[in-house]
Amino acid sequence: MTISEKPQYDCIILNGTVVTAADVGCYDIAIKDGKIMLLAPTGYLASAPATRVIDAEGAYVMPGGIDAHVHLAEPPLFGKGRTADDYATGTKSAIAGGTTTIISFAPQDKSQSSLLGALDETSIKAANQAYCDYSFHLLVSNPTSQALDEFSILRERGISSIKIYMTYEALQLRDNQILDVLLKARTEGITTMIHAENGDVLNWMTKQLEDRSLLAPKYHATSRPQILETEATNRAIALGELIDTPILIVHVSSPSAAEVIRRAQTKGLPVYAETCPQYMILTRDDLDKPGFEGAKCVCSPPPREGAEDHEGIWAGLQNGTFTILSSDHCPFVFDDSENGKKAAITAEFPQGHFKYIPNGCPGVETRLALTLSANRLTPQKFVELTSSNPAKIYGLYPQKGALIPGLSDADLTIWYPSSTLDPFPIQNSTLHHNVDYTPYEGKMVSQWPRYTLIRGEVVWDRDNGGVVGKKGYGQFVKRDRSSLSSSNSSPWNIENF
Amino acid sequence: MTISEKPQYDCIILNGTVVTAADVGCYDIAIKDGKIMLLAPTGYLASAPATRVIDAEGAYVMPGGIDAHVHLAEPPLFGKGRTADDYATGTKSAIAGGTTTIISFAPQDKSQSSLLGALDETSIKAANQAYCDYSFHLLVSNPTSQALDEFSILRERGISSIKIYMTYEALQLRDNQILDVLLKARTEGITTMIHAENGDVLNWMTKQLEDRSLLAPKYHATSRPQILETEATNRAIALGELIDTPILIVHVSSPSAAEVIRRAQTKGLPVYAETCPQYMILTRDDLDKPGFEGAKCVCSPPPREGAEDHEGIWAGLQNGTFTILSSDHCPFVFDDSENGKKAAITAEFPQGHFKYIPNGCPGVETRLALTLSANRLTPQKFVELTSSNPAKIYGLYPQKGALIPGLSDADLTIWYPSSTLDPFPIQNSTLHHNVDYTPYEGKMVSQWPRYTLIRGEVVWDRDNGGVVGKKGYGQFVKRDRSSLSSSNSSPWNIENF
Amino acid sequence: MTISEKPQYDCIILNGTVVTAADVGCYDIAIKDGKIMLLAPTGYLASAPATRVIDAEGAYVMPGGIDAHVHLAEPPLFGKGRTADDYATGTKSAIAGGTTTIISFAPQDKSQSSLLGALDETSIKAANQAYCDYSFHLLVSNPTSQALDEFSILRERGISSIKIYMTYEALQLRDNQILDVLLKARTEGITTMIHAENGDVLNWMTKQLEDRSLLAPKYHATSRPQILETEATNRAIALGELIDTPILIVHVSSPSAAEVIRRAQTKGLPVYAETCPQYMILTRDDLDKPGFEGAKCVCSPPPREGAEDHEGIWAGLQNGTFTILSSDHCPFVFDDSENGKKAAITAEFPQGHFKYIPNGCPGVETRLALTLSANRLTPQKFVELTSSNPAKIYGLYPQKGALIPGLSDADLTIWYPSSTLDPFPIQNSTLHHNVDYTPYEGKMVSQWPRYTLIRGEVVWDRDNGGVVGKKGYGQFVKRDRSSLSSSNSSPWNIENF
Amino acid sequence: MTISEKPQYDCIILNGTVVTAADVGCYDIAIKDGKIMLLAPTGYLASAPATRVIDAEGAYVMPGGIDAHVHLAEPPLFGKGRTADDYATGTKSAIAGGTTTIISFAPQDKSQSSLLGALDETSIKAANQAYCDYSFHLLVSNPTSQALDEFSILRERGISSIKIYMTYEALQLRDNQILDVLLKARTEGITTMIHAENGDVLNWMTKQLEDRSLLAPKYHATSRPQILETEATNRAIALGELIDTPILIVHVSSPSAAEVIRRAQTKGLPVYAETCPQYMILTRDDLDKPGFEGAKCVCSPPPREGAEDHEGIWAGLQNGTFTILSSDHCPFVFDDSENGKKAAITAEFPQGHFKYIPNGCPGVETRLALTLSANRLTPQKFVELTSSNPAKIYGLYPQKGALIPGLSDADLTIWYPSSTLDPFPIQNSTLHHNVDYTPYEGKMVSQWPRYTLIRGEVVWDRDNGGVVGKKGYGQFVKRDRSSLSSSNSSPWNIENF
Repeated sequence: MTISEKPQYDCIILNGTVVTAADVGCYDIAIKDGKIMLLAPTGYLASAPATRVIDAEGAYVMPGGIDAHVHLAEPPLFGKGRTADDYATGTKSAIAGGTTTIISFAPQDKSQSSLLGALDETSIKAANQAYCDYSFHLLVSNPTSQALDEFSILRERGISSIKIYMTYEALQLRDNQILDVLLKARTEGITTMIHAENGDVLNWMTKQLEDRSLLAPKYHATSRPQILETEATNRAIALGELIDTPILIVHVSSPSAAEVIRRAQTKGLPVYAETCPQYMILTRDDLDKPGFEGAKCVCSPPPREGAEDHEGIWAGLQNGTFTILSSDHCPFVFDDSENGKKAAITAEFPQGHFKYIPNGCPGVETRLALTLSANRLTPQKFVELTSSNPAKIYGLYPQKGALIPGLSDADLTIWYPSSTLDPFPIQNSTLHHNVDYTPYEGKMVSQWPRYTLIRGEVVWDRDNGGVVGKKGYGQFVKRDRSSLSSSNSSPWNIENF
Repeated sequence: MTISEKPQYDCIILNGTVVTAADVGCYDIAIKDGKIMLLAPTGYLASAPATRVIDAEGAYVMPGGIDAHVHLAEPPLFGKGRTADDYATGTKSAIAGGTTTIISFAPQDKSQSSLLGALDETSIKAANQAYCDYSFHLLVSNPTSQALDEFSILRERGISSIKIYMTYEALQLRDNQILDVLLKARTEGITTMIHAENGDVLNWMTKQLEDRSLLAPKYHATSRPQILETEATNRAIALGELIDTPILIVHVSSPSAAEVIRRAQTKGLPVYAETCPQYMILTRDDLDKPGFEGAKCVCSPPPREGAEDHEGIWAGLQNGTFTILSSDHCPFVFDDSENGKKAAITAEFPQGHFKYIPNGCPGVETRLALTLSANRLTPQKFVELTSSNPAKIYGLYPQKGALIPGLSDADLTIWYPSSTLDPFPIQNSTLHHNVDYTPYEGKMVSQWPRYTLIRGEVVWDRDNGGVVGKKGYGQFVKRDRSSLSSSNSSPWNIENF
Repeated sequence: MTISEKPQYDCIILNGTVVTAADVGCYDIAIKDGKIMLLAPTGYLASAPATRVIDAEGAYVMPGGIDAHVHLAEPPLFGKGRTADDYATGTKSAIAGGTTTIISFAPQDKSQSSLLGALDETSIKAANQAYCDYSFHLLVSNPTSQALDEFSILRERGISSIKIYMTYEALQLRDNQILDVLLKARTEGITTMIHAENGDVLNWMTKQLEDRSLLAPKYHATSRPQILETEATNRAIALGELIDTPILIVHVSSPSAAEVIRRAQTKGLPVYAETCPQYMILTRDDLDKPGFEGAKCVCSPPPREGAEDHEGIWAGLQNGTFTILSSDHCPFVFDDSENGKKAAITAEFPQGHFKYIPNGCPGVETRLALTLSANRLTPQKFVELTSSNPAKIYGLYPQKGALIPGLSDADLTIWYPSSTLDPFPIQNSTLHHNVDYTPYEGKMVSQWPRYTLIRGEVVWDRDNGGVVGKKGYGQFVKRDRSSLSSSNSSPWNIENF
Repeated sequence: MTISEKPQYDCIILNGTVVTAADVGCYDIAIKDGKIMLLAPTGYLASAPATRVIDAEGAYVMPGGIDAHVHLAEPPLFGKGRTADDYATGTKSAIAGGTTTIISFAPQDKSQSSLLGALDETSIKAANQAYCDYSFHLLVSNPTSQALDEFSILRERGISSIKIYMTYEALQLRDNQILDVLLKARTEGITTMIHAENGDVLNWMTKQLEDRSLLAPKYHATSRPQILETEATNRAIALGELIDTPILIVHVSSPSAAEVIRRAQTKGLPVYAETCPQYMILTRDDLDKPGFEGAKCVCSPPPREGAEDHEGIWAGLQNGTFTILSSDHCPFVFDDSENGKKAAITAEFPQGHFKYIPNGCPGVETRLALTLSANRLTPQKFVELTSSNPAKIYGLYPQKGALIPGLSDADLTIWYPSSTLDPFPIQNSTLHHNVDYTPYEGKMVSQWPRYTLIRGEVVWDRDNGGVVGKKGYGQFVKRDRSSLSSSNSSPWNIENF
């Protein structure tokens, strides 16, 4: 691949193997004014005038990755751990990994009765900071009637999704509150993301472990067994069926939860699901490393028991149970001089206590490379899961997640030609986030993005400057309602009373 | 059938078709000192000396019915409706319907931190009142550590079952509280009965209906759709699986809840289930009768949509999903001069409000006749569901629920010889409870107990005096641990940490 | 929409709403030398020089329909009925309905030990006759070792799929023969289509009906109940799993068969499925019309009981159980002076006998309009099922079924702009096949193709000449192996011995 | 336990823990004229006059075992192996293991058009030979119309069950033949046993293995993978559902077949199932012993892969999927001087060939002890599976399989008091069949029958003479229709046409 400079088109991608959610084939792409302009036969644009020409012969050219589950610059919700990445470092990490749009969270504090403060604060944090385009999910922790009434304002401001929790004291909604949220979400055309773990059971398990002084990082996994996720998933689906509105279960880790989801989908319910690389790659053993190292892999739900669980998740990716694949990038510093290792080594617990380990791992930069390197998905399925479907379900489509002439932003991830890149280990030292570790340290990958383009501009050029995009180049993207969601006619639908 | 008087044996039953949970065949039974004494070939005891001889030729002779779900003399838990039957009227009604043992509830009030007060009070209410034998389930509404510690005292006092609720503000336990209860129940060998409806969802549905001024009795059913029961059933099973201890889901009304239960049983989990005649006979239409008549059929869960739901319940009875068949006798006066019809016609709601209708219907007297008349179960299955299994799961076996010489009490229900009894309609005027209606008014039955014997004494003689037993004849029966419960090795078992 | 004439590009489609299996959006398409040339923003090509310009504003522009299940010019396999359409009339009908490629059958006669005769004969029948492009599935009725060895020759000649039958005396293979076929198909990269109905059971049912003189057309459905299809589907899947090779179950009619297929897909087996409009639209009642009219709807499997079955099929289309939607166009003349109505009114059976009714209905022309008019699928799903997936699974992709610049043939179906066409009834008099009826007579549709283009040429122009393509314009298309098929690692795989 | 002699009663069993399918408890049993006479409280009969008194304190007293699947004195059906046991040795082995009634097979030869010859021949072979009571299943290999018409004669002669095969060239019926059989069986009230393995697939697998020269005994298992059994089971159920008549799947070995059966039972279909100890105890490894030893464990279906499969079978026994537990005693001599080891070491195959190993293992003597020793079933479940249910489903009830006074034969198995018997290894040298090995050599058991009584006579007294019964004491038992079978209203029922 080589780059030369010519006028007229902003950029031309020649000879690439272009992949969309449906198609794969070799053809050329011309970009103008930040948009996909022409799609033309291979070679057709070879001598077209362009500011920049990328010869992608032998390489995959894909719509840029969309990571719909990223935590940035959030205040401490669970004890002391403020997210380590702000909008600058987080999105810089994103583009270095091939992701061109992220959707992060604007978290309502339980003490707030309005959502707009959270939205405004988060907007300010992001403004002029981002390297990639971005939007927000509103994280609703206190669904007051004011907050519910503001859903229509969210829509006006281009926010068409919210996230709620069935766990965490600071966030957990009771089932009746969830119904309040879902009913309003239905009216306003909002997609509801649900963190499905049973908080009451989790608290009980935690207390049992504490009573037995079982506090090492691996007990984080013990405190949240699969059944706790599977139960909450089933409950979330029942609540969604009652209201007859689309829901998306985030970060599904358990094959038995996936089975519950698949059963709902078979019935025709508008139930969507997300999983993350940690559930295809990490296991409980990663939590049981010497010393306090296991804390680096503490996320929620936790990595599961082993290879059979991973297989179940891969099967769900292949057979369509999972709609999207996100990172759940949730970055915390491990060696936190102020707060102890991942904030869990305290005076009271000099050996640490799993309960105080902030839940979450970084992953926005490694998501695409890890997944593609696993070589378990067709290229089209990979694009569907990591770009097109996130765009569709969260109302970014066709501006994002596609390569439609005139309509789609020229957001592209261009990989190395196959066989060009030797397998190499992931090393935190080469990553761009503001975290002092990656849970994937040493995991081998055989793919990495060569270029990342956002609206026609090369922002990541691995062999030539690395991050070449600018802070603040990323823009807030207004979103419309989901183009995936359909509605079932639930017999319980309250409108049918 | 004729009766004559002779010495030595207390009673002899000749020529009957004797049915147990496994067997059916014609043979004679001799009773002595309140116990089953001899089982002998038909005719063998024809001339044996006996105080009383019953010729049961052509009739079914069965272990007396055990109704393990009866509410008597309870204080008002949901508003104004105190149960209409006390231990005298309720148990008189029981024996007239062929039931020889009931298990009723000793309800802990949420304000109490101990269980023993409830037990003592209920014991006092029952003492010297009952026409049939009885025991109590402890209804646990406030599982304080004191209450949990008292489980061992319950066992000492012959109480081996408790009941908890996932609904009703006054009773509802959160999932962590349920786990506290289940863990202790496991330690003490106690069977936990669970009322599985999602209380948070119910409250939400009720509010939606109120907001729309939909208050007629039929909206009771609308407020508690099947999905609400199915969800809670799934959750209860998950909690039971986590603790790895037996649970029994009471009064299952929904085929989809039965499906969830069956799936758990297929996996080998110790999950048991109960259903009731109302879910095989009544439908939502019964709640939609003119005026406020529908209130007579208000129970929880509510009667379901129609014939297909009934078929699902019958299928569950036939294929073993259901372990027991009880009445959930929960008697409230309909025309309550003080409180309005079923306490729901108030000054504020002159047309009534479904929310204030006390939940429950009488049924202790009609349970056996209605079920047997339906002619859907083999005689053995009928005995298993209505007598032997209740005895086994609640630790009454083999004293009750069987016909084992020397071991079993001579509790017998003797039916009319087949073809002797013409089909006739159930009429409240002929029933013995203290309720001014039956939800089954006019339903045809083709069977009714001819005699009921408790510990060898005829207490019900339909053609000759009706209730001939005495108030206070009934005794409290101490119970042991379940002989049905087995234990699965749940992978989540906290002991395996 | 208007057409004007200009030089250079062969054809330009302006302003259309272009749909692929993944995407939908407005953009322009330029065609050159029979291929998709440029995809460009709406308006971009407005003044580009072109031989033909089609303004498709407001209209769907889709990859041309691919009908992968068409019977043409076949010799009589079941009694007297030779297919009524030859390659000329059948493909003329196809293009009038928006289909640009068909795959028909080259049927081996059971008396032949080679497949090549069938291929040659069919090739001759098709040569210079077709209005649309075409390929053949080899119908294997006698899998001799010679025939199996010829699979590699099939691949050389561009045939990558075969069809086998589990029913029909003249065609039925035993399970061991099916395994022979599947093992060789796996080696050669051939996709095996299976007609899954249990022939032995069918013959038995037929005999039972004959014994009872139940011979009217509706008894065709009685003779082939759903369970017979469901059983065979399950068996076919087991055989495929044993060999670990992709299979496609053709013309699935029964929701319970779809359920079996879905279960296999959930397990990750390479099982694909096809359904047809008759199973979304016709019911058993259509077989029970007065006189012998019901014979017009006799196909195999038969139309099912009613709306609930249709819903099951639609659900399968929506949730991904079905991979493709074909017509199973199988045309027989109804009023056949020589052979009686549909060949079933004979001297022996003057009232007709369902057994002699040739199985099959015409449908190649109505498939797309009926399906799109039902308005149950997103446009992308419609394209996936009727064009892209048939192309992928049968190795036509990306030449067919896509709009990839330089790679895809310019085969397009352009619909009327929405709201332009008033709903109208299907009438056989307006169709182009050589059959004297359509089973859909009078069914209302709200969509019909305005233009059909094959390799850039307009061959159907509904408002301006109708069929404007030429006989013989259609070409044989060589096919490669399926790009959908993946391979599971079946534990039974004989290679793992 | 001691025995003394007194007049009047033939035999009295004192102080035993008596077990039936429903009940367990301590009481006494008096026997007179070969029948159960009195059941009385423990100690009640202590001084009753009796010819024989057995003190069974601490021991289980159970209805005698019924082994409903025993092959005796059959002609060679698969090559050279005639069954090694005749009615004398086979039934002697039975009583030594606690079995009091067997049902063996009267095999129709495919060359016969009548069934009566088979019945007569088998009757002659059994006459005056048997040590225990017996009946026959008619093995139908050629369901001619004559044979079907003879079903009514079978019923007159006390035969109410037939067995058919879906495999073995000499026996396999096609699906239409199976339907012929099932329809007639329904009319005549006959239960149909089905050997469910797909014969066509088996033959194909065998040929593949032969082509690869894979001939060792373990390839017997390879040739019959679980999927082959699961498929045939599913097909058999479909055929039974179509005719709406009870079927029993014999010797189920595969958890996935059990799952198919359970699903049918959940739907309410009259589907019953049998399993055997070999599927709870042996694995494929037992076929892979050094030399040709593996041939000793060759049976069909073969032992499965391992512990997980065994667990699946145990789960099916516990949750009610399996109706009965039989031995499938199918005895062949291992060291057969005339025919080579198990008839499979021939001149052509000096190392042996799995295809020629006669399928079957002995087990009539070890069935009860192995199962009870596993300690996985409650005593009642054990009696239900090994005695009461076989009696009920095959029409022996209540003469056999129960302890009903006056009705049941005094067939009893009395075990050693618990803790009396130390665990010991099974050794073929101590068994009573005419086979030179047992597949269970060395397996430990902790239970063995102390006494076996048939019609009141002690026929096995382990500590005092061993087999003390006489050849010819066993009687042919006429059987009535199944008392388990119920009928579903299949929508496909041909009567509903």
